[in-house]
Amino acid sequence: MRITIIGSGNVATHLSAALKNAGHRIVQVYSRDMHNATLLAYHVGAEAIDDLRDINPQTDLFIIAVKDDAIIETAAHLAAYSKLIAHTSGAVDLEQLLNITPLAGVFYPLQTFSKTKEVDFREVPMCIEGADEDIVKTLEALARDVSNSVYRISSAQRKVLHLSAVFACNFVNHLYGIGEQLLKDSEMDFDLLRPLIKETADKAMLNSPYTVQTGPAVRNDKNTMGTHLQLLKAQPHLQRIYEMLSQDIIKNHNKGNGDK
Amino acid sequence: MRITIIGSGNVATHLSAALKNAGHRIVQVYSRDMHNATLLAYHVGAEAIDDLRDINPQTDLFIIAVKDDAIIETAAHLAAYSKLIAHTSGAVDLEQLLNITPLAGVFYPLQTFSKTKEVDFREVPMCIEGADEDIVKTLEALARDVSNSVYRISSAQRKVLHLSAVFACNFVNHLYGIGEQLLKDSEMDFDLLRPLIKETADKAMLNSPYTVQTGPAVRNDKNTMGTHLQLLKAQPHLQRIYEMLSQDIIKNHNKGNGDK
Repeated sequence: MRITIIGSGNVATHLSAALKNAGHRIVQVYSRDMHNATLLAYHVGAEAIDDLRDINPQTDLFIIAVKDDAIIETAAHLAAYSKLIAHTSGAVDLEQLLNITPLAGVFYPLQTFSKTKEVDFREVPMCIEGADEDIVKTLEALARDVSNSVYRISSAQRKVLHLSAVFACNFVNHLYGIGEQLLKDSEMDFDLLRPLIKETADKAMLNSPYTVQTGPAVRNDKNTMGTHLQLLKAQPHLQRIYEMLSQDIIKNHNKGNGDK
Repeated sequence: MRITIIGSGNVATHLSAALKNAGHRIVQVYSRDMHNATLLAYHVGAEAIDDLRDINPQTDLFIIAVKDDAIIETAAHLAAYSKLIAHTSGAVDLEQLLNITPLAGVFYPLQTFSKTKEVDFREVPMCIEGADEDIVKTLEALARDVSNSVYRISSAQRKVLHLSAVFACNFVNHLYGIGEQLLKDSEMDFDLLRPLIKETADKAMLNSPYTVQTGPAVRNDKNTMGTHLQLLKAQPHLQRIYEMLSQDIIKNHNKGNGDK
């Protein structure tokens, strides 16, 4: 396919590289910042533009990978070309794009990208939605060219997916940070915890997390929980987080989730 | 060294195998359950016993790997042999062992073990403490035979270490579980989230977590947070967890932790 990439951030960078590697032609890369457009365009053999009026209409698909609140405005500029437009956001409903064009779809890679770290795109789940079955099939086929994991996900599901990622990744990362801070405060290195963090994530690759829960809360070990709350007495916000998550683990376990 | 293993659980299993592989001699394995003692003893070429009166005094070190509340009682049975006794717990103070014997130490592997999953013991941080410098040096040398990461950790530090592991691993696993549950409730598979979970953990291997925090809270994206709280309206306990962790991320970010 001939593909036009709108945006030059992390998603645009990784996605356009994966599409090019899969044999597709990246026609143009648009960014408001010509420097960024040029960098990415060079990388994927495309033309760089910083003005939407310079769009080359000889394309099959516009992939919009800009900030959520700029997606609809940008799509409005592209609708005139009557080509398929797909956004890459976890949070924007297909409905919003449909207000602008009937040739609307979603091409959402569920992964956290950074420009410096390589990601194996074949492992990235691609979440597809489209205005009709033809569009879904087109985007699915394209997704399969870059990834082994392609899912049809509705807008309503996509919102929940994003929410679940906040729990299982954003909040998780914050808990890693709390762990590091506690160690620092007692002159210990975060390296002590890293193997355990890795093993905990590895276990979740093969298991249903509730069934492999460990720690004082799931054992209802009141002694240890009391010691921990005491250790946190100078940090009431951490005490509250500790208590709330421990209570949730206890309650969940009593409901019969988990196997021990 | 000639080593006697007290216990036949996950820690006893992985630790005795690692020590044997490093060339040490496991003399006996004790368990209250003769079946379990026999299984592990066979595995490491030791004698199985289920009665502490059958202890072979020709040993250099007793490693106690039993439940926390049984450690001191077990140690009391072994003190008569005047050999070094080390426990493997994150939560029991050296002081408690010192009430029983001056030949006391701690040999604590900071990892979550399961009997079915292999762990690369060389990556497991070993936390060492001892009644005197000689004991510390003996246990340190032994630890280096099985692991690349050996740390001197005081009892006070060990408590904080355990606490930090509750945040960064036990609570983290519970958040994975919440993520899975949210997906299930909307008929999506946990496989969608697994690559993101893995990448989040991988990032923590190389970075200080607060500096790579992502998600709506660190962006103070009130729109998305509002949508998420709305999605959780039927599950007030998850709303509370969502709000509390989001507030902590926002507060932490405003304090200047993190680089964006």
